[in-house]
Amino acid sequence: MIITLKRKATKQEEKKVVDKIKKLGYIPHISKGVDITIIGMVGEFAEKYKETFESMEEVDHISEIEKPYKLASREFKTENTVIKLPYGIEIGGTKVPVIAGPCAIESKSVLLETAKIVKAAGGTILRGGAFKPRSSPYSFQGLGERGLKYMKEVGEKLQMPTISEAMSVEEVPLVSKYCDIVQIGARNVQNYDLLKACGKQKKPVLLKRGMATTIKEWLLSAEYILAQGNYNVMLCERGIRTFETATRFTLDLNAIPVVKKLTHLPVVLDPSHGIGIREHVPSMAKACLAVGADAIAIEIHPRPEEALSDGAQSLLPAQYNKLMEELKVLAKALGREI
Amino acid sequence: MIITLKRKATKQEEKKVVDKIKKLGYIPHISKGVDITIIGMVGEFAEKYKETFESMEEVDHISEIEKPYKLASREFKTENTVIKLPYGIEIGGTKVPVIAGPCAIESKSVLLETAKIVKAAGGTILRGGAFKPRSSPYSFQGLGERGLKYMKEVGEKLQMPTISEAMSVEEVPLVSKYCDIVQIGARNVQNYDLLKACGKQKKPVLLKRGMATTIKEWLLSAEYILAQGNYNVMLCERGIRTFETATRFTLDLNAIPVVKKLTHLPVVLDPSHGIGIREHVPSMAKACLAVGADAIAIEIHPRPEEALSDGAQSLLPAQYNKLMEELKVLAKALGREI
Amino acid sequence: MIITLKRKATKQEEKKVVDKIKKLGYIPHISKGVDITIIGMVGEFAEKYKETFESMEEVDHISEIEKPYKLASREFKTENTVIKLPYGIEIGGTKVPVIAGPCAIESKSVLLETAKIVKAAGGTILRGGAFKPRSSPYSFQGLGERGLKYMKEVGEKLQMPTISEAMSVEEVPLVSKYCDIVQIGARNVQNYDLLKACGKQKKPVLLKRGMATTIKEWLLSAEYILAQGNYNVMLCERGIRTFETATRFTLDLNAIPVVKKLTHLPVVLDPSHGIGIREHVPSMAKACLAVGADAIAIEIHPRPEEALSDGAQSLLPAQYNKLMEELKVLAKALGREI
Amino acid sequence: MIITLKRKATKQEEKKVVDKIKKLGYIPHISKGVDITIIGMVGEFAEKYKETFESMEEVDHISEIEKPYKLASREFKTENTVIKLPYGIEIGGTKVPVIAGPCAIESKSVLLETAKIVKAAGGTILRGGAFKPRSSPYSFQGLGERGLKYMKEVGEKLQMPTISEAMSVEEVPLVSKYCDIVQIGARNVQNYDLLKACGKQKKPVLLKRGMATTIKEWLLSAEYILAQGNYNVMLCERGIRTFETATRFTLDLNAIPVVKKLTHLPVVLDPSHGIGIREHVPSMAKACLAVGADAIAIEIHPRPEEALSDGAQSLLPAQYNKLMEELKVLAKALGREI
Repeated sequence: MIITLKRKATKQEEKKVVDKIKKLGYIPHISKGVDITIIGMVGEFAEKYKETFESMEEVDHISEIEKPYKLASREFKTENTVIKLPYGIEIGGTKVPVIAGPCAIESKSVLLETAKIVKAAGGTILRGGAFKPRSSPYSFQGLGERGLKYMKEVGEKLQMPTISEAMSVEEVPLVSKYCDIVQIGARNVQNYDLLKACGKQKKPVLLKRGMATTIKEWLLSAEYILAQGNYNVMLCERGIRTFETATRFTLDLNAIPVVKKLTHLPVVLDPSHGIGIREHVPSMAKACLAVGADAIAIEIHPRPEEALSDGAQSLLPAQYNKLMEELKVLAKALGREI
Repeated sequence: MIITLKRKATKQEEKKVVDKIKKLGYIPHISKGVDITIIGMVGEFAEKYKETFESMEEVDHISEIEKPYKLASREFKTENTVIKLPYGIEIGGTKVPVIAGPCAIESKSVLLETAKIVKAAGGTILRGGAFKPRSSPYSFQGLGERGLKYMKEVGEKLQMPTISEAMSVEEVPLVSKYCDIVQIGARNVQNYDLLKACGKQKKPVLLKRGMATTIKEWLLSAEYILAQGNYNVMLCERGIRTFETATRFTLDLNAIPVVKKLTHLPVVLDPSHGIGIREHVPSMAKACLAVGADAIAIEIHPRPEEALSDGAQSLLPAQYNKLMEELKVLAKALGREI
Repeated sequence: MIITLKRKATKQEEKKVVDKIKKLGYIPHISKGVDITIIGMVGEFAEKYKETFESMEEVDHISEIEKPYKLASREFKTENTVIKLPYGIEIGGTKVPVIAGPCAIESKSVLLETAKIVKAAGGTILRGGAFKPRSSPYSFQGLGERGLKYMKEVGEKLQMPTISEAMSVEEVPLVSKYCDIVQIGARNVQNYDLLKACGKQKKPVLLKRGMATTIKEWLLSAEYILAQGNYNVMLCERGIRTFETATRFTLDLNAIPVVKKLTHLPVVLDPSHGIGIREHVPSMAKACLAVGADAIAIEIHPRPEEALSDGAQSLLPAQYNKLMEELKVLAKALGREI
Repeated sequence: MIITLKRKATKQEEKKVVDKIKKLGYIPHISKGVDITIIGMVGEFAEKYKETFESMEEVDHISEIEKPYKLASREFKTENTVIKLPYGIEIGGTKVPVIAGPCAIESKSVLLETAKIVKAAGGTILRGGAFKPRSSPYSFQGLGERGLKYMKEVGEKLQMPTISEAMSVEEVPLVSKYCDIVQIGARNVQNYDLLKACGKQKKPVLLKRGMATTIKEWLLSAEYILAQGNYNVMLCERGIRTFETATRFTLDLNAIPVVKKLTHLPVVLDPSHGIGIREHVPSMAKACLAVGADAIAIEIHPRPEEALSDGAQSLLPAQYNKLMEELKVLAKALGREI
C-alpha cells in the first residue's frame, strides 16, 4: 500500500512512520515531492496493516495496491471455476443454465406445475424459497422444511438440480440436505457466521450481492466461504439500491465484466429481483446473457396474482416460454448455449 | 392502499379488481378520471395484500397509505419510550447519555483504562465489541466471550451499563448474559432470525440502520423484535452509503426528525462510524445533539495507532474530553443534559 | 392525483381540502377508512396543483397518478419516433447505428484518421467534442468552432452524419450550423435555457441523462425541448452515480425498457462513459444492444495514450473492429441490424 | 500522483512509463514489490497528466495525491475568507447570518410582507427567486427582471442584502445589477460557462452543490469562478440524492467539516431544500448551526398553501420566529452569534 504523509510532514514525523514499517518487517520506499512525502509499503499481507497507519496522526491517507482477498482472486486461480451439479448440469462453462421457479414454495402441486413449465422450455435448475426473508414480520415467511422436501421430491422427479435460500446457521444443514445449491440472500451477504457455516458444508453456494455491497466487499464475503474449504462458490448480482425508484433495484451489469476479471468464480444474474417489473424482465435477461452471465435466475409463476411473494416480478408461463426461445437464439450468437 | 388501474382499463378489468377487494372483505372506493381509474382499499391490514394486487395485469401500481409497522408506530404508543438501564441511566428521556469506548475490546487493561477516561469526562455507558463483523476474514475478529467478561467486570467496577454486539443467534444469550444492551449491527439489520432472538430475551436492544436500509425497512426490522415481546428497542443511525467517498459513510441526520415523528422508540446517533474521520467526529457529534439524538455513541482509544480495529475514527482522550465539555454546554442550550 | 389527509382529520379539515379542489374546477372523490381519508382529484393537468396541496397543513402526502410530461409520452404519440439524418441514416428504426469517434476533436488529421476507422468497420455516425465540459478549469477545454469545422469537413468527406455537444445557449447555433445532431451533456440535463435553445432550432437533439436524474426528470427535460416545437429528440443513458466506485459510473440498463414504454423517443446508450474502463466497454456494448438500444455511442482513439480527454475509456482500433463484428452477429439474433 | 503498473509488468513496460514521466519533466520514484511496481510522480501540476497515464496499457491505475484545485484550497490561503455585504453584514466570520425569504418572488406586497417577518425575528439577508429552475416546463417559471426589481426595492427599504439565482449567462448581469449575491443552483453546478460568467462580475457568488456532486467536483466548480478573478465565493450544501425517499434530499452535514478543512471559503447550509418537509426544517437548522455553518438559508412564506413553488418546505411565520429564538440561544453556546 501507499502511505501519503500529512502535508509538510517533518523529518521526525516521517521517521515515525518509517520505523513502524520496518518494525512490521517491510521495507519502506520513500518518494518526496515539494510538500508531500509518500511511502510505499509493498509485500505479502501489507494491506492488513492499513488501519494501523490510518490511525497515525502523521498520515494523511492510504491508497490500496494489493487485493485483500486471495482465494477468490484470479491471481490465486487463473482458470474459471466450473461448478458441477447433478444430472450433468454445470455453471461456469460454455452453457448458460437458466435457474427458474417461483419466489416462494407454496404447495407441492404448484411447485410441480411450475417446474414442469420451467423444464419444458429449457430451464435446467429449479429455484424456490422455503425460508423467506420478508421485510415485514407480518408477511408470509415460507413453508420451512416442508417446502424443502417438496423441492427435493420435484427436483428428483424432473431430474433438475435445486436451489433454495438459508437465512441462518441452523437452516444451512437443512437446505444442504434437501437441495443442490445453498443460496445466501442479499440481506445476509455480510452475515459472517452464516458464510462460515456455508463454507463448512459441501454443497455449492450461491452468494447474492447486497444492495449496498461494493464489489470488493462482495469478493471478501466469498472469501469467508472459500477460506473454510468450500471452493464451489458462485456470485449472484441481483440489483443494487440507487436513487432511481422507477425500478425496484438497479441491476448492475457493469459489475459483471469487472468481477469476472478479478475472480475465477462463476457469476449468476437475477433480472427478476433486479428490475422487479414483470414486463421488463425479458429485456434485462437478454442483456444479462450478452454481458457474460454464467447462469440466469428467473422467477415464474403459473398464476402470479395468487403468488404469496413477489408476484409483480414473476413471469407468466407464456412470457417465460417466449423468453427462453429468444435466449437460445441469442446464446448461439454469443458462442454460448442455454 | 390506493390501486391505480392500467390506463384505459375496461369495465371488465375494473370489475376483476373490485371483486378481489370484496372477496378479501374490504369495500372498494372507486374514483374515475378520463383515462384513469383509481380504487381505494382502506382498512386494517389492507397493505398486507399489496403484492396480490401488484401482480394483477389490470393494475398499474399501488400507493401505500397506512404504515406496515404497528408496535413501532406512534399510533400504537403516543409517548416516547424511555429505556431504563442499571445505575439509574435512561435512554429516551431528557438526559442524553454518551456511550463511549473502544471499537473492539482488546485486553482488560486497555478496556479499563479507556472506561476510566470515558467516565471521568461524563460518559455513562461503556461500549466495546467482543464479536467484530469484519469485511475481511483475515482481520481481527474479536476476543469473543472473554471480551464480554472483561466488559462485565469493568462495567461493574465503574458502575457503567455496557453494550456489545451480537452477530448471530448463538451470540445473543452470551451478550445478553454479560452486557446491559444487545447491539445489532448495520450488516444484520435484516437478519430476521437474529432479530427474533433479540426479541425473545429481556435486555434492551440497539438496532443499527443498515447502510442501504430505508426508514420504513428499519422500522419494520424493529417491529420484528417488538413482535416477540421485547419493547425495549432503540434505533441507531450510523451512516448510509452514498456516492460521496470523502467520508466513510454519510451520517443521515435528516432521518432523525422523520423517525422520531413516526415512532416512540429512542434514537441513538453514531458519528464515529458515520463520518469515519477522527478530527471531524466532534463537529458531527454536536450536530447529532442539536438534531435531537437521545444518546450519542462515540469511539475513543487511548492510543488509536495501536487499535486493532477502526483506529482512524477513534477520538484521542484529549479530543474526547474537549468534546464532552462542549456537548454539556450545548445540551443546556437545547434544554437537555448530558 | 391522490390526496391523503392527515390521520384523524376533522370534518372541517376535510372540507377545506374539498373546497380547494372544487375551486380549481375538479371533482373530489372521497374514500374513508377508519382513521384515514383519501381524496382523488383526477383530470387534465391536476398534477400541476401538487405543491398547492402539499403545502396545506391538512394534507399528509400526495400520490401522483398522471404523468407530468405530455409530448414525450406514449399517450401523446403511440408509435416510435424515427429520427432521419443525412446519408439515409435513421435512429429509432430497425437498424441500430453505431455512433463512434474520439472524446474530443484534437486535430483534423486525427479526426479523419479516427473517422476512417469508425466507418470501415461499420460505424455510421461520427462523434467528437469541440466544447468539452471538464470538471477542472485547468484541463483541455476543446478546440471550439475550429473543431466543429473539422467535423463538418470530415463528415462530408466520409458521408457520415455528425454529432457534437453544445454547453451553452451561445454554442447551440454553432453546433447546429456545422453538425447534424446537437448533444446536451449529462451536466446540462436541467439547464433549462439550453434546453429551450435546442428546442428552437431544427437539428435533432441527443439529451444525455444526468448522473442523478430520475427517469421522470429526464423525460421532463425532454419535454422542455419538445415544447418549443422540435420533436426530433433522442434520449441517451450514459451512467448514473451510485456508491460503487469500481466503475466510473453505473450504466443503468434497467432504465431502457422502462423509458421505452413511457416514451416514443429513441434511446441511445453510451457504454464508454457508463463503465469508463476500456477493456469492459465491449461487454457492456453487447448488453446495450440486447436490452433494446436504438443506437450505441462508443469512444475510440487511434492512440488513447495521446488523447487529450477520456483516454482510459477509448477503445483501441483493433478492439473496436472486433466489437463491431460481434455486434453485427448479435443484432441479427435480435432481429435488428447494425 | 502514484502510478501502479499492471501486475507483473516487464522491465520494458516499466521503462515506457518512466520515460514518459521524464519527458514531461518530472522525476520518477520507483518502488518495487514482488509482483507490483509503483511509480511516484510528485510535483507542481502532476495531476494534470492523470488521464495520459490512465490511458497507457502498462498502467493499472492512478492514485491522486495532490489536490486539483489551487485557489480554493487552504494551501493557497490559510485564513477563512470573510465576504462583506452591504449594511455591515458578513459571511464567514463569527456571526452566522440567517438568509430567509420565499422560494419564489410572487409579488411586491408578498415579498415585502415576508421580508418584514424575516427581519423582525433577526434574519439579515433576503432570499427570493426571480428565475426558477423547474423540472416541468409547465410549472411557474418566475417573474424575471420584474422580480429582481422588487428584491432591490424591498432590500433597500429594509436595509437587507439580497440574493437571487441566475440560471444562464444572460441572467448573470441582471442578478448582479439588482442583488447583492448571485446564486448558482444545484442543477448548474457544472454549467461551466455560467460559472465563468459569475467569475467575471464583481458581486459575491453562492455556489450550491449539485445533488450528485462530490466534494472534489464542487471545489473544482468553485475554482472555475475563482480562476476568473472573483474571490468572493461561498459554497452552499442543499442536499444530495440518495436511496432514501422519506426526505426530499439528504442534507449532507458530513461534508461541512470536510470542506471547511479543505477550503477557506465560507459554507452556507440550506435545510429547507435539504430535508424538504416543513415541520422538520427547524431540527435540521439547529444541526446546521452546530456542525459549523457560516450562514443558514431558510424558506418562509406567510401563507405556504398559496406559494407558487416549494410551499411544502416553507416555514410558517410562527415556526420561523420560534426557530430564530432557538438558534440565538444555540449560537451563543457554540461561541457564535446569529
